[in-house]
Amino acid sequence: MKIRLGENCYGKNAVQLSKIIRRPAYHEFRQISVNVSLKGDFEEAHTLGDNAKILPTDTQKNTVYALARDHFKTSIEDFALHLVHHFVTTQPQVSEATVEIAEHAYHRLLLDGAEHPHAYISGGQEKHTTLVRKDAESISVSSGISDLLILKTTDSAFEKYIKDQYTTLKETSDRILATKCTVSWMYDKLPADYSQQFDSIRELLLRTFAGHKSLSVQQTLFAMGRAVLEAHAGVKEISLEMPNKHHIPFNLEQFNIPHENEIFIATDEPYGLISATVLRD
Amino acid sequence: MKIRLGENCYGKNAVQLSKIIRRPAYHEFRQISVNVSLKGDFEEAHTLGDNAKILPTDTQKNTVYALARDHFKTSIEDFALHLVHHFVTTQPQVSEATVEIAEHAYHRLLLDGAEHPHAYISGGQEKHTTLVRKDAESISVSSGISDLLILKTTDSAFEKYIKDQYTTLKETSDRILATKCTVSWMYDKLPADYSQQFDSIRELLLRTFAGHKSLSVQQTLFAMGRAVLEAHAGVKEISLEMPNKHHIPFNLEQFNIPHENEIFIATDEPYGLISATVLRD
Amino acid sequence: MKIRLGENCYGKNAVQLSKIIRRPAYHEFRQISVNVSLKGDFEEAHTLGDNAKILPTDTQKNTVYALARDHFKTSIEDFALHLVHHFVTTQPQVSEATVEIAEHAYHRLLLDGAEHPHAYISGGQEKHTTLVRKDAESISVSSGISDLLILKTTDSAFEKYIKDQYTTLKETSDRILATKCTVSWMYDKLPADYSQQFDSIRELLLRTFAGHKSLSVQQTLFAMGRAVLEAHAGVKEISLEMPNKHHIPFNLEQFNIPHENEIFIATDEPYGLISATVLRD
Amino acid sequence: MKIRLGENCYGKNAVQLSKIIRRPAYHEFRQISVNVSLKGDFEEAHTLGDNAKILPTDTQKNTVYALARDHFKTSIEDFALHLVHHFVTTQPQVSEATVEIAEHAYHRLLLDGAEHPHAYISGGQEKHTTLVRKDAESISVSSGISDLLILKTTDSAFEKYIKDQYTTLKETSDRILATKCTVSWMYDKLPADYSQQFDSIRELLLRTFAGHKSLSVQQTLFAMGRAVLEAHAGVKEISLEMPNKHHIPFNLEQFNIPHENEIFIATDEPYGLISATVLRD
Repeated sequence: MKIRLGENCYGKNAVQLSKIIRRPAYHEFRQISVNVSLKGDFEEAHTLGDNAKILPTDTQKNTVYALARDHFKTSIEDFALHLVHHFVTTQPQVSEATVEIAEHAYHRLLLDGAEHPHAYISGGQEKHTTLVRKDAESISVSSGISDLLILKTTDSAFEKYIKDQYTTLKETSDRILATKCTVSWMYDKLPADYSQQFDSIRELLLRTFAGHKSLSVQQTLFAMGRAVLEAHAGVKEISLEMPNKHHIPFNLEQFNIPHENEIFIATDEPYGLISATVLRD
Repeated sequence: MKIRLGENCYGKNAVQLSKIIRRPAYHEFRQISVNVSLKGDFEEAHTLGDNAKILPTDTQKNTVYALARDHFKTSIEDFALHLVHHFVTTQPQVSEATVEIAEHAYHRLLLDGAEHPHAYISGGQEKHTTLVRKDAESISVSSGISDLLILKTTDSAFEKYIKDQYTTLKETSDRILATKCTVSWMYDKLPADYSQQFDSIRELLLRTFAGHKSLSVQQTLFAMGRAVLEAHAGVKEISLEMPNKHHIPFNLEQFNIPHENEIFIATDEPYGLISATVLRD
Repeated sequence: MKIRLGENCYGKNAVQLSKIIRRPAYHEFRQISVNVSLKGDFEEAHTLGDNAKILPTDTQKNTVYALARDHFKTSIEDFALHLVHHFVTTQPQVSEATVEIAEHAYHRLLLDGAEHPHAYISGGQEKHTTLVRKDAESISVSSGISDLLILKTTDSAFEKYIKDQYTTLKETSDRILATKCTVSWMYDKLPADYSQQFDSIRELLLRTFAGHKSLSVQQTLFAMGRAVLEAHAGVKEISLEMPNKHHIPFNLEQFNIPHENEIFIATDEPYGLISATVLRD
Repeated sequence: MKIRLGENCYGKNAVQLSKIIRRPAYHEFRQISVNVSLKGDFEEAHTLGDNAKILPTDTQKNTVYALARDHFKTSIEDFALHLVHHFVTTQPQVSEATVEIAEHAYHRLLLDGAEHPHAYISGGQEKHTTLVRKDAESISVSSGISDLLILKTTDSAFEKYIKDQYTTLKETSDRILATKCTVSWMYDKLPADYSQQFDSIRELLLRTFAGHKSLSVQQTLFAMGRAVLEAHAGVKEISLEMPNKHHIPFNLEQFNIPHENEIFIATDEPYGLISATVLRD
């Protein structure tokens, strides 16, 4: 029985890049984190220590900075597409290149009702993400959102579930539903304007979350995914991960304080994690 | 030479509390982290293990939740004032109580130009903070902001500094100035409306940062502090910590790519840290 | 074209559990983090909000604590096996259960050459991990290590790699090789004693890392994986992720200080990430 | 009423440095994080943006790397002493320099009963720390430990504390006492060998923690501090921060499982925080 190399890849992670695009009326500031990962003919790198087909991860990093000047001008999806194309076409030993980009949100400061031309404030932890993968024949583009922290204070219930000998949870017809959502969707047909698509899908996800009469996280998750597929013919499938950031009612009754479902213990751990993909048949 | 107990305190940290205030037109959602710290007659607790004067930190935590129902209705400063008053007046062995609160920012979702009545999105890592301290004679209130991530893409220079044998930094008349600011100010005269004061001071800090022609972080920091003191007679002093989140120009010239000060390496470490207090004579 | 539910699962994550096993001569202290994840007939939970087949994640958490008393007595693998068996056999709607456990390392304090009977010190961030998955027909067990931070100060080179227009990295025949390794291996034949297997494989990984004359991270990774497969017939395959924690020589020559490859900038980001599976043909 | 600059300082934080000291028999590997902070005549830097007296934080960082070659050969205390001396004596505008260093623990791999000459494994999150401060007249040196995660499974009680209307905690004569301790002590008389002092004090802290029959965290903390002062005449005072990492008994009785104080919920938040200084009269 021979021992051999199986699935393998390598690349540079956490390439932190910022860019100023100096427009006539204002400065556009962008900040991204880039991961590059390559697959290909790396057998002898592993078995013999032969680096002849290894493009160093340091060079991958330099490439990201060098190409950002001319090719990171619009969406992160367009930049990622350029990067995977570069690696696959210039490196014959590379059979597949994957580029992931997360874009940090910044907003121009709003002063006296106008956006300042060059002063920015962070938009928080929420990030616009993309994952682009290319091999000799095909290319796939997915876009998404990470760290989308949303909640609703009502219109969320959780009832009529299984009870067994370890059940202590009480049924509730009115609870806080809070989640730090990760979403990604895959395009069937690559759109002309990724940023416009992103804004539209993000708005629809928020709208659906807000308006849904939730009977469970699962049901709200599915409703959000279905809404996107119904409205966006170019989206093939969408995956959502919804960790349940529990807000547990604090027991005021033990102190003879009347209970009106208003004071909660906000917890991080443990957390329920609900995830699913919604797709077209 | 006798060995003895010096400065000491104890309390509960990271009490995570959320509250829904059900207003006629909408649900107000609030989330805070509370630290309680007590000083007093705790000598024998340390030297003898006598707990007769110890209010357990678990009880302190319960107290925060129990009092939040009736006393966390407006600002975090008002709630902290109530809590320190409670601990100092109900616990004769406590000579000084300190309560710190950080409030997480949440915004009601904006859909079709209107704020949703009960769906929220995180406002990011920036937090409104307060530290209230009370002993038998006096009370002090400071308010502040933590994790305020702001930047400007121009109007920032750093030149004419000391050069020695270890200098490699190049002077620049145009750099990115980015910082994750911590600010706190102390009130001389306690305001009637802390939230209004907070909003006004925060806006002034942002406005000053944006408009300042910066020759150094020190100069911008001082300008921000001075602006607050000039505009707010009730503020006694203000302290700012401004870690410099460096965006270092990437050397494109080594690849014969024309350099226009547009591509940067965004770094977290190491970081410059500038801090100062600005006050009235 | 119909929209439908695809892959989905749900469960409780980050269930933090500690246990004291009171042995005659000493107290054994164990601390673990448990993730439970279930797949099954959850279609109507998503599409209709019907929770009739949903075992709440809160109950899953209670189950972990309740079963730990009688069934977490030896290895985390044995406990995970019991948990997946419990969920699959008691819940007919569950087609597949996955339990991941990470065990925190603690060592009894060594005082006067003897292990203290009940005082412990943390063994650091390194954790023993397992992932056990069961469906109606089969069961799979993998064990592993996370956050294994190891380094060697010599016997590591990186030379003769591809150079292109973006190359700036210098070849080196003597560098620091540092990595925070994640390893997991899958058993073909379930061993009688998982802890003994774990200790033996961990020792072999460390020994191989230490003794290897490394021409690249890839080559060291492969050598480590191969060594385990050669020595452990019951291991089917092994996967290693080796992020390269770069220690970059600081340029002392610019200050006319003789350079002897001794002072380094320790960096976290960006980082090279090398990963591969080694298996039997 | 004039507005003026109060307390201020600036410097470089998180300078990550590693060093190989090539000894005849083995390679000594060291990794440290350094913070530099300067006070002095920086009024006009703040008020006028005049940088004539500013040594850039980038130069401070370079200085740390440059001086490490010849002056980081033994303890972090000795290196910090050299650094503060350098800044105060070469920079006339600096009235006070503070250097903090945290050293990461690494151990040579133990294989076949012998330490490997150049392969290391992390010693975990615990760090040896120092803070050295120098002005024109005086110098102070404190040493310490951070992130010291220790626990004992018995010999810890918490009883006879105050009960009020918000008390729910049950008295216990046998609980887990766990803490992630931060300790620092100040030397009265600077020792010849800081590393020997450190090892001796650390051993005494652990021994006292392990052997103490604890009636409260406060009592154990005081015992640990007193033991160090009694045994080390050169130590002037010692401060300890002991966050209580609660392990809360899981209520098995609700499931009719006999309770033997063996299964616990390990929690991070909220946490009790006990801190005190122990000193000589």
